[in-house]
Amino acid sequence: MARLTLTFLGTSAAAPTKARGLPAMVLQREGELVILDSGEGVQRQFASLGLGLNRETTILITHLHGDHVAGLPGLLWTMALAQRTRPLTLVAPAALKEWLDSTAKVLHLGLTFPLRFVSARRGRVLRLPAFDVLAERASHSIECFSYVIQEKTRPGVFYPERARRLGVPEGRLWSRLQKGRSATVEGRTVRPSEVTGPPRPGRRVGYSGDTRPSKALARFFRHCDLLVFDSTYTNADSAKAVEFKHSTSTEAAQLAERAGVRRLVLTHFSARYQSTSALVREARAVFPATIAARDGMEIEVDYPVS
Amino acid sequence: MARLTLTFLGTSAAAPTKARGLPAMVLQREGELVILDSGEGVQRQFASLGLGLNRETTILITHLHGDHVAGLPGLLWTMALAQRTRPLTLVAPAALKEWLDSTAKVLHLGLTFPLRFVSARRGRVLRLPAFDVLAERASHSIECFSYVIQEKTRPGVFYPERARRLGVPEGRLWSRLQKGRSATVEGRTVRPSEVTGPPRPGRRVGYSGDTRPSKALARFFRHCDLLVFDSTYTNADSAKAVEFKHSTSTEAAQLAERAGVRRLVLTHFSARYQSTSALVREARAVFPATIAARDGMEIEVDYPVS
Repeated sequence: MARLTLTFLGTSAAAPTKARGLPAMVLQREGELVILDSGEGVQRQFASLGLGLNRETTILITHLHGDHVAGLPGLLWTMALAQRTRPLTLVAPAALKEWLDSTAKVLHLGLTFPLRFVSARRGRVLRLPAFDVLAERASHSIECFSYVIQEKTRPGVFYPERARRLGVPEGRLWSRLQKGRSATVEGRTVRPSEVTGPPRPGRRVGYSGDTRPSKALARFFRHCDLLVFDSTYTNADSAKAVEFKHSTSTEAAQLAERAGVRRLVLTHFSARYQSTSALVREARAVFPATIAARDGMEIEVDYPVS
Repeated sequence: MARLTLTFLGTSAAAPTKARGLPAMVLQREGELVILDSGEGVQRQFASLGLGLNRETTILITHLHGDHVAGLPGLLWTMALAQRTRPLTLVAPAALKEWLDSTAKVLHLGLTFPLRFVSARRGRVLRLPAFDVLAERASHSIECFSYVIQEKTRPGVFYPERARRLGVPEGRLWSRLQKGRSATVEGRTVRPSEVTGPPRPGRRVGYSGDTRPSKALARFFRHCDLLVFDSTYTNADSAKAVEFKHSTSTEAAQLAERAGVRRLVLTHFSARYQSTSALVREARAVFPATIAARDGMEIEVDYPVS
């Protein structure tokens, strides 16, 4: 079963602190990377975590505030220095394209690889080999998208005794059936459904970007195995959350509860808080399976026990 | 006598390493800042060194390669977040203006202060309260400027016995004469030259940016008190220095020797070197007063013994 991990590269809001860099995360599965936001410093985190610069890579940008995208030029620059050749796909609000073109020209990025730009929109924005990428509108001061990275459905559990009963010999044909393809045994077709349980849904990872909580997002993040949500403020600063269109950690927890997610990770902490303990305490009062992100933290996304 | 210090914020070439960030330095004198280049991460160094975001600030950019400028959007963004109000002057090759305009618009910088853009050119590009800023063409793969920050001339040494001999009473009039202004004593004008030595030149700090050594730069950096010079490579890699239009540390030292500078600081080290000891050793064989920059290092720029 493929390992799926999420690593936090930056967990601060708006401005970096000594301990926290600007927003960026990377989801990894069998050598494939999905980067979520690219705050300034993302390439340095790439280097210190030893993440490859020439791997299958997709970048998803939630919105065009400087703190979420200013690390893109440096990351692209360093990929070019490393002689990256694989195409890179970038999903972002449409206006980013203009800035990327200006950046590539004025800062002499000299890209060595094709850069495919996809304008973010509601719905399924991308089909990757292992994932579908879905987007929904967040509720921020400017256009902002939330993303769900949905691992593709896996074939159901394989039952060897059923295969034996139907006379399918162990080996190549079992392997076909396990992968969800039919097999022919002595002129008769055996369908995967005869020897496996129902298809099992893949894992779902959600990321809110900067947002107020909303009904649309509670629907969008339904049954995520892991949800990473804007938790800029504590309850005491909830007026600021409303003013600047962010969420409190309590609001993040309420949304996680409503969406029926399995685990919640708080991130995007205002630099005013020395510690995240109050944010976590307030969230856990609503949704116990909550932790706070910190830079460099890696989380394994597991399957629900079936 | 005003303290003049140079602090290195990033000392790597092209790509950051665990120990070194991308090129940026800041010269400080009585609360005034002159930033030289703005590689990615400059705003985070600003925060960790406690440098103010609303001080008299000038930014000098040598050239438009991504590693020297990609930290600008984040720095401007964070200055705006901090509600900076003072104007900021930015000197850079002309094309940067287009990128800054695109950046301000697309990334919603929301600047709270006037940004004055000055196109870099040879000669005196700026007169600041305490400094003149001079520029010369460097010799790199794209248009690149070297800078000299020249502290304004100070009045000469004041001789109290001469003032007394001329009947100038100690106090306000001595202070006027010390500052280089005339004083009137019982109807007679006393000129500063009667009571002080010759005017003393201010301190000179030079920064090469990315460049091959050249005769023009040896002239331009003449008698600098401190010269910071491109030292990307060792002698063993001198072919790369020629190919990519950089300098070896030996070439930096030869230029320092020819220009008659007082002290040389090597910077912009290729990530291929784990240590700078070979670079320093090779340079000192030519110019003994050489050190290697490292991130966070602060150097005091003193006056020559007169």
